[in-house]
Amino acid sequence: MLLPFLFFGLVATAQKTDVDKKLRELGIDLFPPGAPMGNYVKAVRTGNLLYLAGHGPTRADGSNITGKVGKDLTLEQGAQAARQTGVAILSTLKAELGDLNRVKRIVKVLGMVNCTENFTDQPKVMNGFSDLMVAVFGDKGKHARSAVGMFALPSNIAVEIEIIVEVE
Amino acid sequence: MLLPFLFFGLVATAQKTDVDKKLRELGIDLFPPGAPMGNYVKAVRTGNLLYLAGHGPTRADGSNITGKVGKDLTLEQGAQAARQTGVAILSTLKAELGDLNRVKRIVKVLGMVNCTENFTDQPKVMNGFSDLMVAVFGDKGKHARSAVGMFALPSNIAVEIEIIVEVE
Amino acid sequence: MLLPFLFFGLVATAQKTDVDKKLRELGIDLFPPGAPMGNYVKAVRTGNLLYLAGHGPTRADGSNITGKVGKDLTLEQGAQAARQTGVAILSTLKAELGDLNRVKRIVKVLGMVNCTENFTDQPKVMNGFSDLMVAVFGDKGKHARSAVGMFALPSNIAVEIEIIVEVE
Repeated sequence: MLLPFLFFGLVATAQKTDVDKKLRELGIDLFPPGAPMGNYVKAVRTGNLLYLAGHGPTRADGSNITGKVGKDLTLEQGAQAARQTGVAILSTLKAELGDLNRVKRIVKVLGMVNCTENFTDQPKVMNGFSDLMVAVFGDKGKHARSAVGMFALPSNIAVEIEIIVEVE
Repeated sequence: MLLPFLFFGLVATAQKTDVDKKLRELGIDLFPPGAPMGNYVKAVRTGNLLYLAGHGPTRADGSNITGKVGKDLTLEQGAQAARQTGVAILSTLKAELGDLNRVKRIVKVLGMVNCTENFTDQPKVMNGFSDLMVAVFGDKGKHARSAVGMFALPSNIAVEIEIIVEVE
Repeated sequence: MLLPFLFFGLVATAQKTDVDKKLRELGIDLFPPGAPMGNYVKAVRTGNLLYLAGHGPTRADGSNITGKVGKDLTLEQGAQAARQTGVAILSTLKAELGDLNRVKRIVKVLGMVNCTENFTDQPKVMNGFSDLMVAVFGDKGKHARSAVGMFALPSNIAVEIEIIVEVE
């Protein structure tokens, strides 16, 4: 009589470990998010939507990848900065939700790339972030996105990304 | 006894054809949306809200209106680019919803204009988009909006617009 | 038998006057919002969310604080412009909601600072806005935020801010 419950329990457990397992496979270590850069909070939930503050390419030691793509950073380095911003955002999500498996969908992404005036490959830079989301969350990680080129960003960070997440 | 149903059926049909009829009156031909410029999707729905990715002034042949307003493009040409971005967005909405009459409200618009540093008429540029939404959807097309001037945009497109739509 | 109702009535009245009282304590006078700068509306509600259009640092007389932070304006003047944008936004909220006590949460803020290319203190500028929201609404005023540096803004306003508010 307990078999169906056992079965569903096993399925639920398997699903629950998916995202953490995927992070391990990708060699990604999350870290405790640092303090916000001003008088704001890292995330606010309303209904089933979690709005995240703008995040930069923060490393585990709290330092940031800085500089302008097209001058200080190559396209590849910019994409790496976007990916690191993804790691910082995953770290905030983990701290907010406790369990990354509670993410139902990465809904919307605004990716702002610190770059030179004639740099026009913001989408390739932002793929560094988007590829990570799809690698971690699969279809749930596929999002609507804008990628744009910025004149100036806080502390000269290379990328700033804000996202909206649908959560359980 | 069937008359009331017939009456409401006619009203419903009249309403359902409004948007398509309006597009014909305006001489606007929608087109199948092209592929996204990166690893993202054109739209994500959560609840009754549809979040659209950033769109550029894409023509039916897939080419874009490019250049900076205030240097490469006049104000009028910028407004035309914003209007063309509206056509591209309507094309995506049609592909997503099947029927544009399912649009309940254009809720929020972020309009990013590729321009020179001393150009300050972003609202007039963005009216090219907003006027089209109101022409097509009437009161349902009236939206909250931000219009700003950008340093650089993907592929040097003249305008990038992202919107949030409430749908049935 | 009426005592419980009386009691709750008094509590409700006390809560209802909180925000207006706080505005008086802070010496803030709201004003009737001016017309939008283009073919859009100042706010659109969908569900429990109110999306506000981009606002500038508009004064009661309709004039704006203009110029670039880092060149025309100091950091302190920029923060003052962000605070004034907050007053303009509160004025719009008051006009939309009738009663500012209907604000349940300032959910999300996008703060766009008109600045020079090497200015990197956008978060300190935006604290002028955020500090005001927390002073007025307390914990309900704590929001997720992005702060970024813009190349150009409408009418050369010093700051443009758009917000999402959860309302009753």
